[in-house]
Amino acid sequence: MALAHALADKAGAVILPHFRTGLAVDHKGGAAFDPVTAADRDAETAIRQALAEACPSHGIIGEEFGESRGSSSYCWIIDPIDGTRAFIIGQPLWGTLIGLTSGGAPLLGLMDQPYTRERFWSGERDAFFRRDGQTTTMHVRPCATLADAVLASTTPDMFEGGDAEPFERLSRAVRLRRFGGDCYNYCLLALGHIDLVVECGLKPFDILPLVPIVERAGGVVSTWEGNDPREGGRIIAAGDPRLHALAMEMLAG
Amino acid sequence: MALAHALADKAGAVILPHFRTGLAVDHKGGAAFDPVTAADRDAETAIRQALAEACPSHGIIGEEFGESRGSSSYCWIIDPIDGTRAFIIGQPLWGTLIGLTSGGAPLLGLMDQPYTRERFWSGERDAFFRRDGQTTTMHVRPCATLADAVLASTTPDMFEGGDAEPFERLSRAVRLRRFGGDCYNYCLLALGHIDLVVECGLKPFDILPLVPIVERAGGVVSTWEGNDPREGGRIIAAGDPRLHALAMEMLAG
Repeated sequence: MALAHALADKAGAVILPHFRTGLAVDHKGGAAFDPVTAADRDAETAIRQALAEACPSHGIIGEEFGESRGSSSYCWIIDPIDGTRAFIIGQPLWGTLIGLTSGGAPLLGLMDQPYTRERFWSGERDAFFRRDGQTTTMHVRPCATLADAVLASTTPDMFEGGDAEPFERLSRAVRLRRFGGDCYNYCLLALGHIDLVVECGLKPFDILPLVPIVERAGGVVSTWEGNDPREGGRIIAAGDPRLHALAMEMLAG
Repeated sequence: MALAHALADKAGAVILPHFRTGLAVDHKGGAAFDPVTAADRDAETAIRQALAEACPSHGIIGEEFGESRGSSSYCWIIDPIDGTRAFIIGQPLWGTLIGLTSGGAPLLGLMDQPYTRERFWSGERDAFFRRDGQTTTMHVRPCATLADAVLASTTPDMFEGGDAEPFERLSRAVRLRRFGGDCYNYCLLALGHIDLVVECGLKPFDILPLVPIVERAGGVVSTWEGNDPREGGRIIAAGDPRLHALAMEMLAG
């Protein structure tokens, strides 16, 4: 965990000078708009260099430079800027995601927002939030019914084809739905301010570092079918296990 | 303007202790979910008391307590927490809006985000941004075509009835659309990171304090038809007047 904090410090120092500088945006190609900034690449390079020195036997899977296999069963999962669209328009809801897995299972996770100076991470049993030098334990809040629930999701545009209708059904049954947020929403769920995060098309590095944070704050993360979320895809996170069951039922129709 | 800064300081001191405390949410009634928090009411009360002392002849229009007519032509326009939904879920994209009008015309405006410690305001000729004690002048950025434009809007749910289709047409023609943000998006437009903000159903206090900020950063704010935005309703803000014209054309169909 100390290494994860050091990696986040390094990444933040690389990324922050690029935030709100209006730098040019590259395209990764393909039809969808998928921006990747100099900050993204430089931060992942800095993290990979630090990991190569600190634990050369560990594997690394990163959003920008793919997979480097290690000789040990440990693998670091890195997304230097989760929420590149928020980053591009200047909203401080993006974050640096750093996770460690063992044999594919998430061990620990960290999300860092260097502009607001907020950090969210998992300990062995608990989840923590730090700002202005103050660290507090995070707890999800109880919410037993859809009618009482607040749901957040990055954008309605992530629900394509047959996924749009179940999302619409669920997100119309809750008290409040709100778009925008990326990784930040999962951390607000761990902090007890959001009850449900429902998304689609996530990559493993978008969700793996967040799983230990949500779980150790008392929440549940799975696919829409209730399976292990480690491969990404269609993800549902809930603060209350009862709400998780109700939301899965409504997504299934 | 010095008074506007003092009012924002007072409001922030009242609001911030309520942020992320999970306080109960009242309903104003009606079918739509329209939360109003203790923070909202207490901040407007604090602002009204300060205005009553500093300039008793001025009128006040506030989101929470309506209109108090004054004997002078000056009127303060107050929205203590613009973006109550963002506030409720813990996202730091809400803001305190304070504006001054003379004979109904906007004279000056200020947006304060006390959690991120950001303040955006209009001077007589320029617009300014302050954080960490550093004040900079804000400028919109040039963007001559829809294909290059980044568009932001608080939520797709604000476009009801016949307004949904024109918004969909425009927001699909731009390079990137992003939801979430409320008043924060207009300030990011003034800072040169967003090219278009397109919204519906705004109240006068949602937009009046933002007009001088956007205009003095070089941008344009109007209704979808190009009229004076002071009554709220369907609003379009653009950093580049050429883009403003193109976007209005596309909204008109």
